Amino acid sequence: MNVTVGRRTRHYRTVTFDTAKNVVQLIEQRLLPHRFEIVATRDFRETARAIKEMIVRGAGAIGATAAYGLAQGARAFRGTSARRFAGHVEVVYQTLRAARPTAVDPVNAMNDVRRAMSAGNSVEEQQSLAIAAAEDFANDDVRHCEAIGRHGAPLIRDGMRILTHCNAGWLAFVDIGTATAPFYTARKQGRKFHVLCGETRPRSQGATLTAWELSQEGISHEVIVDNAAGYLMQQGEVDLVIVGSDRTLGRTGEVTNKIGTYTKAVLADRHGIPFYVAIPLSTIDWNLRSGRDISIEERDQSEVLGAWGTTQMRSGRRVYVRVANPVSGARNPGFDVTPPELITGIITPVGIFKPTELWASRKRLGFPAAGARISC
Amino acid sequence: MNVTVGRRTRHYRTVTFDTAKNVVQLIEQRLLPHRFEIVATRDFRETARAIKEMIVRGAGAIGATAAYGLAQGARAFRGTSARRFAGHVEVVYQTLRAARPTAVDPVNAMNDVRRAMSAGNSVEEQQSLAIAAAEDFANDDVRHCEAIGRHGAPLIRDGMRILTHCNAGWLAFVDIGTATAPFYTARKQGRKFHVLCGETRPRSQGATLTAWELSQEGISHEVIVDNAAGYLMQQGEVDLVIVGSDRTLGRTGEVTNKIGTYTKAVLADRHGIPFYVAIPLSTIDWNLRSGRDISIEERDQSEVLGAWGTTQMRSGRRVYVRVANPVSGARNPGFDVTPPELITGIITPVGIFKPTELWASRKRLGFPAAGARISC
Repeated sequence: MNVTVGRRTRHYRTVTFDTAKNVVQLIEQRLLPHRFEIVATRDFRETARAIKEMIVRGAGAIGATAAYGLAQGARAFRGTSARRFAGHVEVVYQTLRAARPTAVDPVNAMNDVRRAMSAGNSVEEQQSLAIAAAEDFANDDVRHCEAIGRHGAPLIRDGMRILTHCNAGWLAFVDIGTATAPFYTARKQGRKFHVLCGETRPRSQGATLTAWELSQEGISHEVIVDNAAGYLMQQGEVDLVIVGSDRTLGRTGEVTNKIGTYTKAVLADRHGIPFYVAIPLSTIDWNLRSGRDISIEERDQSEVLGAWGTTQMRSGRRVYVRVANPVSGARNPGFDVTPPELITGIITPVGIFKPTELWASRKRLGFPAAGARISC
Repeated sequence: MNVTVGRRTRHYRTVTFDTAKNVVQLIEQRLLPHRFEIVATRDFRETARAIKEMIVRGAGAIGATAAYGLAQGARAFRGTSARRFAGHVEVVYQTLRAARPTAVDPVNAMNDVRRAMSAGNSVEEQQSLAIAAAEDFANDDVRHCEAIGRHGAPLIRDGMRILTHCNAGWLAFVDIGTATAPFYTARKQGRKFHVLCGETRPRSQGATLTAWELSQEGISHEVIVDNAAGYLMQQGEVDLVIVGSDRTLGRTGEVTNKIGTYTKAVLADRHGIPFYVAIPLSTIDWNLRSGRDISIEERDQSEVLGAWGTTQMRSGRRVYVRVANPVSGARNPGFDVTPPELITGIITPVGIFKPTELWASRKRLGFPAAGARISC
């Protein structure tokens, strides 16, 4: 999407690859929203470190970064020995995989690239197939998000006030995003609306990343604390909720997403406000049979007990401040599970489904072929 | 309640009066939870400034501070002219009133003191009646909170996990508090339980003040972000909710309290968790006929867009950090209104009532006599 630095506005993807220089280019997300910077990683180890240190985060974005990283590593190999090349690629693969060991997207993305490489008859051929496959992966990510935008945009009518939670925006993907895709598409279609960005404590991705994205795109928005959602719904000031998902159960329609999503769904239900979840197909888990089987990550207490921000708006350097009582501890569940009865619809690249329709529609939704090409 | 500084534990009230020195002594609440300090105000103007600058905050606490401030000002008068004394007292009254012009507690408290003074036949007699009335006001505040504790404590059973929101603790009153009173009383009675302090963004009074209070009293507790309440209720990890109220409508049972209270009530209702509101009688508004008539204060955006905390745990000096995107704005409603159907009971100094029973029980609840003595 567009980013304005100084007086210059240009289009950026979250991650791109410079074929001539063999470098991966990433938006340094840890500096946002206070500073915009592009980081170039010059070899696969630097790329792995960028994933590990969360210069890049978000399902689609780390998937594409790992795909590019694998191609980058493969292309750095000098020689013609197929055996030594295979060993080298294995090291690259494992290094990138270890950068975020619990994430599924880098693995899926790199498996795509390896599958494509296997058709090559020489090291050189495999190297060029690798980069083509990585580009395909990134372009598919964009195409899927565009399709989510096409299906979701008709939900947005002129004058609506739409609540979103956390960041399921273009920074979390290669471009456009999932929960934000209907916004960007509806705006292109000329509609005017207002987005309420739920702050999303403890990491405040709504106040930082989503608000930054929307301001760069000139979309009318305001930040609210998570506590204010109920009041604003009660006052009739929210017409629609759209959020993303980290994992949606294809068999039950249960939606795992950032902590606080369930609360917003309960509130929307009470006030009769439509509640939509926008997801890429890679997010659907076809195996788990119950949301109770999802283990919810308990994250570091320090996130709850303090906050990251800046005192120097110019440099944007962020510091951690302790907010809470110094000797108190905290619970910090990272995610929650929203049951299907609270969800109006799931916006996917192939259309909008009721959560309980996912299983019956599983063929259209890409089941069971992981990494299969979806027509959208 | 008890405060430990270094190795020494002693009992403090939020506000006390030193008759010999004619000074008001206040806990400097702006330094909490990082530093504990007592501030002495040497004349009524300093006392007014302490209210204005929020060294002291909370309904009961600012009421008692204003009562002491009025007595302090009256006692500083030198002379015997009744007319000049009356003029001086009026200046003191108006100065203290202007410190928090929208708050009702300082006015009610000072009216109590003036009423008592009117029985005096000389300046000296009025001066000593003033200080006695201010002490009565503070002691009544403590007595009412103790009574809330007696009525509320039986709700707490061994092993319970109780959620509270914001700070309706002893720091907001002279001692003991309202929502916290059942905790302190149940603990005295030997019961063990665990309190979840909802952070209460944007000002985080749950994470700062309530967590500090509970840690000083050695009550088991943890801080959670406001987003986590729904998840924890879903997991069966919350057995009871107790919150305070800034204004409860005696005619309808609607409860105005810190933003986010309504959300907690909706969640508790969905999960069948009892939801109680603890209030002093001074909080009951017998006039308003609908919660829609309550104008909800929209507070400064900076509260939502950033946070106060410390980088120096030793000195505890707090700084403001900007968290949100630099060019984004915010909505910041300070309060919300919870309807009676979501409230299990209202814990008052004279017993627990269903919210819809308040009007029928108005005589026991002190209606219509503002400032009347309640027997509890």
